[in-house]
Formats: sequence, C-alpha cells, structure tokens
Amino acid sequence: MPAGASATPPDTGSQQWSAGDSFLSMWRELAPVGRHPDSGGYRRYAWSAADLDCRAWFRAQAEARGLIHETDRNGNQWAWLGDPLAGDAVVTGSHLDSVPDGGAFDGPLGVVSSFAALDELRGRGVEFTRPLAITNFGDEEGARFGLACVGSRLAAGQLAVANARRLRDADGITLPAAMESAGYDPEAIGPDPERLARIGAFVELHVEQGRALDLTGDPVGIASAIWPHGRWRFDFRGEANHAGTTRLADRRDPMLTYAETVLAARREAELTGALATFGKIAVEPNGVNAIPSLVRGWLDSRAADQATLDAVVTGIERAAREHAERAGIDLDVVRESFTPVVEFEHALRDELGKILEGTGDTGRPVPVLGTGAGHDAGILSASVPTAMLFVRNPTGISHSPAEHAAEDDCTAGVEALADVLEGLACS
Amino acid sequence: MPAGASATPPDTGSQQWSAGDSFLSMWRELAPVGRHPDSGGYRRYAWSAADLDCRAWFRAQAEARGLIHETDRNGNQWAWLGDPLAGDAVVTGSHLDSVPDGGAFDGPLGVVSSFAALDELRGRGVEFTRPLAITNFGDEEGARFGLACVGSRLAAGQLAVANARRLRDADGITLPAAMESAGYDPEAIGPDPERLARIGAFVELHVEQGRALDLTGDPVGIASAIWPHGRWRFDFRGEANHAGTTRLADRRDPMLTYAETVLAARREAELTGALATFGKIAVEPNGVNAIPSLVRGWLDSRAADQATLDAVVTGIERAAREHAERAGIDLDVVRESFTPVVEFEHALRDELGKILEGTGDTGRPVPVLGTGAGHDAGILSASVPTAMLFVRNPTGISHSPAEHAAEDDCTAGVEALADVLEGLACS
Repeated sequence: MPAGASATPPDTGSQQWSAGDSFLSMWRELAPVGRHPDSGGYRRYAWSAADLDCRAWFRAQAEARGLIHETDRNGNQWAWLGDPLAGDAVVTGSHLDSVPDGGAFDGPLGVVSSFAALDELRGRGVEFTRPLAITNFGDEEGARFGLACVGSRLAAGQLAVANARRLRDADGITLPAAMESAGYDPEAIGPDPERLARIGAFVELHVEQGRALDLTGDPVGIASAIWPHGRWRFDFRGEANHAGTTRLADRRDPMLTYAETVLAARREAELTGALATFGKIAVEPNGVNAIPSLVRGWLDSRAADQATLDAVVTGIERAAREHAERAGIDLDVVRESFTPVVEFEHALRDELGKILEGTGDTGRPVPVLGTGAGHDAGILSASVPTAMLFVRNPTGISHSPAEHAAEDDCTAGVEALADVLEGLACS
Repeated sequence: MPAGASATPPDTGSQQWSAGDSFLSMWRELAPVGRHPDSGGYRRYAWSAADLDCRAWFRAQAEARGLIHETDRNGNQWAWLGDPLAGDAVVTGSHLDSVPDGGAFDGPLGVVSSFAALDELRGRGVEFTRPLAITNFGDEEGARFGLACVGSRLAAGQLAVANARRLRDADGITLPAAMESAGYDPEAIGPDPERLARIGAFVELHVEQGRALDLTGDPVGIASAIWPHGRWRFDFRGEANHAGTTRLADRRDPMLTYAETVLAARREAELTGALATFGKIAVEPNGVNAIPSLVRGWLDSRAADQATLDAVVTGIERAAREHAERAGIDLDVVRESFTPVVEFEHALRDELGKILEGTGDTGRPVPVLGTGAGHDAGILSASVPTAMLFVRNPTGISHSPAEHAAEDDCTAGVEALADVLEGLACS
C-alpha cells in the first residue's frame, strides 16, 4: 500500500491515529527517561531505575491500546493484539536499553515505531488475520553485564543459564541480583522454545548505524545480513611501580603494550577491510603516579565474512603477543562473546521487498544492505523467520548523543513497518 | 651515637623500648588497616574510613606515649613532646594515606619509625633540649582528589583555599564535603605560618622508591634533592560512534591518538633520560562497542633538572598535537600540578651526614641521593629547614603491594632517625 494513501486516514476521522502524530507524542514522552543532564546521552542500563521507567512506559503504551501485556521468564516484554497462544504470530519490536551515553534512536525507534505502526493500521481500518505482538527485549546493548542481547539469547537458548547467572556488572552485582532488586524473578530465566514457536515472523525496525542509506538517498532499507562479530578481552599484566622513581629499564609497563596493540588493531582492520576497535579499558591501579599493574582492553571486531574476521583478530593477537614478550608483559586473550554471520531469511526478506516496492518517494526498489551491528533479530533468526528494516541515519553516528534520524524519515519508517505488518498479518 | 651502642638500652631495663620490638608491634597493628583482600594493596584514601582508622591509630600512639595530640586546621596530625609553642622544634613524620593498591611502606614507614625512634631515645635515657613533634600529613598521595600533598601544601600556603575547595573525587564529592563527613571542619583550612614558624628542622624518613641504596649496598641514605615533577592532563576528544558500523574512514577515534601519545612519551623519556608515564586513563563512554568520544590520559613526568623536564613534556605535547591534527581529534593539555626542583637545605643535610658518619655497618659515609618522588618534606622545605632519610628498597618497587623493605633495614632506619633526632634535639 503506498505510504501516500495513508497520510490522511479516511475512515476513522481521528487525526490522533496518524503515524506521525502518534509517533511524536510517544517519542516526546520517552525522551527524558534515563537521559544524563551533562552528556545529553542515555544511560538506560539493564535493570536500572531508568530501565524500569522504560518498562513501565512500554506497559502503559500496551494497556492504553488494549493489548495484553506480558513479561516473559527472561524479562522481555510483549504486548499482544489477538491470541498469544494461537501461533503464527507476526512480532515486531526492538529494545529500550542503551549503551553508556547512547543516542535516543538505537532501540527505542523500533519500539515506538511498532506502536505507531499499529496506530496507523488501526487508522487504516485493516483486519488482522494473525496475532500481532510488539516486544521490548531486555538488555540488548550489554552495557551493564558486558554481554549483548541477554534477553533474546536466553529465550533462544543461546546463553546457558549458568553463564547468565555468573554475569557481573562493574560493581560486582550479578545479573540475578540485579533482576531481583528490580522486582523480577531470576530463578525463572532460561530457554523459552514454546514462546518462540508461536512466532511466524519477527520484524525489527532499527535506525541505521552507518551511512549506506544516506549515500543511496533512501529513507528506509531492508537488512540482508549481520556481519560476524565478537568481543575479545586483552589482559596486559605488568608490574605496578612508582612512576616518579622507577628507571625506564626496570619497568614492565602494560600501558605501552596496550598502546602498541591499539595501533596494531587499526592497521589490521585497514589491511583486511574489517572493523577493529578498542573502546573500553580498565586500568589498575589507575593512579597518576603509578605504573599500572594491569591494563585490560576490550577489542570489538567485525568483518563481512568469517575468514576475514579470523584473520584480523589473529593478526591483532599476534602483534600484541610480540610486543608483550619484548616488554616482559603477560598477556591473556579471552573471547567474551561471538556471533557468527546472520543471513536473514531470504523468503521473508524478499516478501518485505515486494510489499515495499514502489511505496517510497524514490520510485526505486528499497535497498537491501548488510550491517556490522548485532541485534535481537540476529539472535532470533536462528529460531524464527526474521527480517529487519533500517531507517536512514544522515551522519551514520550511533551509540552517541549525536545519533539522529530526521522526523520525515522516522515517519517513513513507521509507514513502511505498517505496510509490512499489514502485508504479513492482515487480510 | 653508634647504632650498636643502643641495641640493649642500659638504663631503663625495659626491652619493650628497643627500636626493633617497638617498631614491629606498631607495624603489625597498622598492617590490616585499609588493606584490600583481593589485591593485597592498601586503599587508604584521604578522609575515607581507612584513613580515619589510621588517624585514630596515630592518636592512640601519641596518647600511649604521653604526647600532646593535635589536629591542625588542615587535618594534619601532630604529637608533641615538650611545649608546642616554645619554637625551634625538631619535627619528624610522614603520611599514612596510600595510592590505590599501594604498598605498606610508602608513608607509614616514616610515621612508625618516628614513634619507634622516640621509644629508642627514651630507652637511651637522653634529655630533650628542644620540643619534638611527630606528624602525619593528610592526603599526601593525592589518590582521591588528584593533587598530592594537600595537607602540607595548604599549611605552607602552596595551595589556594579556593582551589582546594574545588577539588573533587571520582564520585564528584568535594574535598570540603569529604572532610565534613569525616567529622572535620572544612571552613578552617588555609595557610598555617604560625605553626610552621615553630619548626626548627623537619626530617622525614621514607622507604626509597628506587634501587640506588640497593646498588650501593647501604641500608640508609640522605636525600639531596627532589627532581622537578608535574602532572599533565591530555584530553583527546573525538566522536562517539558505533564500533560495529562506522567505516574506518568516517571515524574520529581518540583512542588511537592516545596510543600514539603513550608511545611518544616513552620515546621522549628515553631520549632525554627523564621519566614519563601514562598510568591513569578515563574513557567516555567506555563501552565495548562504542568508539570513544573522549580519552583522558594523565602524564606524570620528572627529570633531574627543569630544562630537561620542559624538553620532554614539550616533545610529548608536540607529538600528541601532530597525531591529533592528522586524525581530526581535539586536544587540550592542562598542567594539573607542578613542583619545581627541591634542594634540601645543605646545612641540615650536612649535619645529618655528620651525625650518621660511621654509624652504619658499611664504614663508609651515608650516601646522598636525589629522588623523583614528591614528599611533604619537599613542600615544607620552602618554609622550614628540611631533610630526608631513605631506607633501602631491595627491588625499588613502590606504589604496589610488592613494595618492601627488609626488617633489618627498617630497624637501621629507626636507629638512624633516633641518632638524628638525638643529634638535633638532645643535649
């Protein structure tokens, strides 16, 4: 259905259901939650007060629309239109948590657009032939416990319960303790195959985290695949000592080896066309006049294919070991998480392409693009047919307070999602 | 007086006053205070619970010896034998606070040795002709508020009260708030010239923080000078972005420029014979999958003379600016603290040398050595005649749980300090 046709919903007579108005009203309501006054970025960490505020907002949105609200055993939220147990449901949604000082769009755009798309479909007066659910997956960013997509991983059986129980935040608080103090039952966490079996198709809308759509001039795109990606922890151990009295020759300073490794990672990424980033560091004792005993750096690396990713990480580790050996530094490298390449289901992807054909202003087919970012959709794709829509990000900036999408593009995203849901779930 | 002569105090008949026993008993009492069970290092930060425990211990030691205990307006502790107001006092002592995960000796060795030296002198039955005081200077390490020697700087008028009031710890707690919550009056802080005018000589005993005495084979040495030294904060500002989706060409990653600067600092130090260390870092947002917006690194640099220190810091800053410009990174460099070269008073230094001549086992003069470490003695040297004694550190390791001095050397330090105090303060 052309997006233009739905701009003035003809048969409800109620402007409040227009996609843009509904979207903006929700967007403004959610905007202050968990926003840090100094940085302007969001700090919506799993099971924090800000996260609980987001969850209360989600529940209120569900109830205001007469949807059945459920929280599953892993803390993911569901808002159902139709019978949750009927099966073959069309599910859409994303997440509401954030990275440290993240932007407003990564996650919330998908959740808000899902509710707005439902409003839009109700405005269109369509009839649903399949159950529809909107979701908020818990702890997608992994900002607090260091592992991304904990809610969807647990549900899909991709994170062992024993390993989840061992997750700790920077203050030493375990995931079960955090859930419990937020009023949730950590005993219940675990695989949820019955629930996933009820899903016929999952579609996640997300702000693009690169500039591909900006370069092609399209407001909306469809995902082809998620690059394989992972996180590696590099522990460089030297010897703490006084920075003002220890001769250079007597030092075993792990900061030097860390610095060499950061630069080696950039070189390896440039050579292979991959991405490699050291963005997180922890130093002990982290005193101005103390040579560190430990520098712990986390490598995030991604590439279009597995062989390239293996090559770049192997190259970085080899360089780190060579520098460590020369400087008397002990090095441990631990792979903390890994997600293989995710090819979204071709049949569903093609169906989305057909539904959206000719709906945009460009007159061209909606572009299909890969991404280096992980998503709950990537986790779920192993269990259910899954697709993603991306909304243009004019700067490509993401995981930053400067993350942005134009209002028109957000509205185009809502329209596209509404079109997709109508095509999949309505007669 | 030869150290051997005092091993068995002849006229008190009480073995409890022997330097070694007295020292060990105090050492064991203080050892568990503020010791972290995991690292084995000390976390005695200014105005923390551990610091208050140390202060209570100091007061108890003073009172057990019948000394007059005072806390001055800046939170420094004093234990007086004789009239505090008489003037021309001989003062000895050091500090009890620590760097993060510091060793047991840096600071406490000087305080414990001061009390033990008094016990030793009482054992010798000497008569004091000048008032004697033992001190514990507050916040010497600057671990909490980022500025070293706050207690002595305030007293000596080397830290403006307005600037002291603005000091904040990592949790945003100001120095006045920390003092107040520890039960001290932050309104009172400020220069204390009357108190300093009562001091005729200040002698600080300290564990050596290098290996000079180990290399010469001497248990005790006398300080010649403290190298000029300072702290510079390098703020590298780039652009936060998603580590998994931002093309290398689109990045402004300040971690890369930080890494180049760390390596440049080492090269500059090697070229000039100076010391330069990046041991403390703060990263924003510090997420595994986020390119940082800010990497803040602190440079500690020291050299034997001012010209060399200027050259090394200028060279590091030049290299940092070149890399920053190439990578689109904004760089601010702020000198956070600076202490010019401190030449300890030659007359007092020579007097110590004469007192200790022939007291050791080596039969050689006590070595006179420079040091890169700052001390309260360095601050006070601008106001009063000041000297320092160093005790051998067999590994040179300092600011680390592995910091160590042999028991025999500690005893030799107490004997030497007792000899010095006897030479200066007794008839």
